[in-house]
Amino acid sequence: MTLPLNPAFAATEPPPVMEARRWLLGVTHPADRPLINVSQAAPVESPPLGLRQALAEAALNDPNAHLYGPVLGLPALREEIAMQWSAAYGGEIAAAQVAITQGCNQAFTAIMATLAGPGDEVILPTPWYFNHKMWLDMASVTTVPLDTGATLIPDAEVAAALITERTKAIVLVSPNNPGGVEYPAETLRAFRDLAQARGLALIVDETYRDFDSRTGAPHDLFTDPDWAGTFIHLYSFSKAYRLTGHRVGAVVASEARLAEVEKFLDTVAICPGQLGQIGALWGMRNLGQWVAGERDEILSRRRAMTEGFHALPGWKLLGCGAYFAYVEHPFDLASDALCKRLVSEASLLMLPGTMFQPEGSAAGKRQIRIAFANVDATGIAEMFRRLAAFTP
Amino acid sequence: MTLPLNPAFAATEPPPVMEARRWLLGVTHPADRPLINVSQAAPVESPPLGLRQALAEAALNDPNAHLYGPVLGLPALREEIAMQWSAAYGGEIAAAQVAITQGCNQAFTAIMATLAGPGDEVILPTPWYFNHKMWLDMASVTTVPLDTGATLIPDAEVAAALITERTKAIVLVSPNNPGGVEYPAETLRAFRDLAQARGLALIVDETYRDFDSRTGAPHDLFTDPDWAGTFIHLYSFSKAYRLTGHRVGAVVASEARLAEVEKFLDTVAICPGQLGQIGALWGMRNLGQWVAGERDEILSRRRAMTEGFHALPGWKLLGCGAYFAYVEHPFDLASDALCKRLVSEASLLMLPGTMFQPEGSAAGKRQIRIAFANVDATGIAEMFRRLAAFTP
Repeated sequence: MTLPLNPAFAATEPPPVMEARRWLLGVTHPADRPLINVSQAAPVESPPLGLRQALAEAALNDPNAHLYGPVLGLPALREEIAMQWSAAYGGEIAAAQVAITQGCNQAFTAIMATLAGPGDEVILPTPWYFNHKMWLDMASVTTVPLDTGATLIPDAEVAAALITERTKAIVLVSPNNPGGVEYPAETLRAFRDLAQARGLALIVDETYRDFDSRTGAPHDLFTDPDWAGTFIHLYSFSKAYRLTGHRVGAVVASEARLAEVEKFLDTVAICPGQLGQIGALWGMRNLGQWVAGERDEILSRRRAMTEGFHALPGWKLLGCGAYFAYVEHPFDLASDALCKRLVSEASLLMLPGTMFQPEGSAAGKRQIRIAFANVDATGIAEMFRRLAAFTP
Repeated sequence: MTLPLNPAFAATEPPPVMEARRWLLGVTHPADRPLINVSQAAPVESPPLGLRQALAEAALNDPNAHLYGPVLGLPALREEIAMQWSAAYGGEIAAAQVAITQGCNQAFTAIMATLAGPGDEVILPTPWYFNHKMWLDMASVTTVPLDTGATLIPDAEVAAALITERTKAIVLVSPNNPGGVEYPAETLRAFRDLAQARGLALIVDETYRDFDSRTGAPHDLFTDPDWAGTFIHLYSFSKAYRLTGHRVGAVVASEARLAEVEKFLDTVAICPGQLGQIGALWGMRNLGQWVAGERDEILSRRRAMTEGFHALPGWKLLGCGAYFAYVEHPFDLASDALCKRLVSEASLLMLPGTMFQPEGSAAGKRQIRIAFANVDATGIAEMFRRLAAFTP
């Protein structure tokens, strides 16, 4: 007899990044053509020395680093976020409206669990971030895809037509993963108005906001004194501070909502890891200038990607920003088959659009996500040489 | 308009430990009667210097400490657990049957999510570990309480009568939180046989196994070559290695089951924190003797608790082991009211049985959990002086 399996899990696809990693198995790359891995959106360099020293110092000498902390996170970190976000977004955010999580994925699952249960519906623009889709599948929540067409920018009027009495939330990611597009402030405002009018939560995942090419606040949602009545903001410390391995994220929402989130986090996490939080706080207090330099570098890589695709015959750049270029390829070949061939024939690991679109989507078969943040100018030039030389 | 709330969350009680902490607010303790906090089961001392140095060294010089790792954990840690557990339990456990999680609570939620969905049933002996109950409530899974009577040891025959076609799993905790009892090997074998015969998962949370008063393996479930067909084992690195603040736990199950667990962990965690895993691995390789000394100290405190309650008129010790004494008080007063009064009148913070029993349970009103692991002989003697002097 086999053990029971929750049917929602049987219906959930396995994590696609691992599938892509399996494509690498058994493939050897020529010495003059090393693998260029543009599949994962994660910094590969260590955090700056000062941050590492802060972690080491806490590990050695701070007894609190080894103890449980509050479920919703270190008070000093919650206060720092409230202060810096209030200034950056021109709004009023209290420390009690900030919770720390073991990474931004956990922030999403914690907040979503409080909003939507089995049979409920949540609207996700396509292409989507696959972990969002996976959580909804595992929780037996119906994902309602919102087509963003060739611009990759979702339209609130199109979304309005998808709302039913079971709809609980709309989830946006800006700058977008996988699409790379930066949503205009008006787009976010239109979605906020829609969500507010229909009594839905508007969740905006701003994991990549530190690399937004625009200056100033990317939206004005926090300037509404009643922002917490509709808007929920998610953030990650993994990208800006290179803290991926420490799992630190945040959710900003109403205090009443965080009391519900606390039930989930107490049960799934007990508390966020202490050293990661200590590192995040040190980073926020000391690395402002350094993060600005990181952003400059990412923006210069983004320019190289934009120029490269404009010069590459047949390929179409749909979006480029954050860590991502999202492109349409010119070949008569499904993107997953193409991406597998690019591994063996060009030593390029990219993720096919099929991983970010509903099953059977025609768009997904034409699309590819390229996470370019870890590739310098030389590497980007080499990637374009290989793409130009590739013929299916 | 207020935002949607998943009704399963509205029906989930908030974490009781935090409620208990609120009882402390505004209470000042006399200088000669400092608070004795026996509410939480967590070490309060830092890990040994060698482990802290290993963490600091990795933070400074190991680039992998800051990067994503595999979803199911560091391969070296999975291998170490497989090797040490195979030897300790006299069975065959492969590294591929071990997954690392962000603490043992997460191990429970990850495995349970793969087993039971909305409307399914799971059997929990009472008194139960409240985070198990909270997860089942949030997931709309029905908790079926299994009364353990005055012995606190569950009976497989009683459990058999509770099984329906919706039952997916039975969850045991041994040594038990909150009950303190160590389940006999025959009890675990009887539950395994029952679970096997009825096609259910038997989950055994062995968070406190390093403090079991018995020598040798606490059960023989792993000696069955087909153990993975029924048995799922959970473990925590928080207690033995004082790594609570780093959130490291483990689940041991069939490889096929872990492929389902991987979907949950990828979405909720991406990966366990790297430094915590590095610390856990260092501890497993270097702290065997030290953990044995820690166990001796806990067992000596356990003896002091047993002797103290046997000498305390009217009080009845129901179970004593792991970090806990679980007792029946002699007063005509509900345990939650009594525990609140013990804070203000005796500067003792204990958790009432009502937090570990189904709502309205008569047993819970008579019971109290005392987490004694952090209190030394002097403190235990003082606690008994205050309990003896207390009159309601």
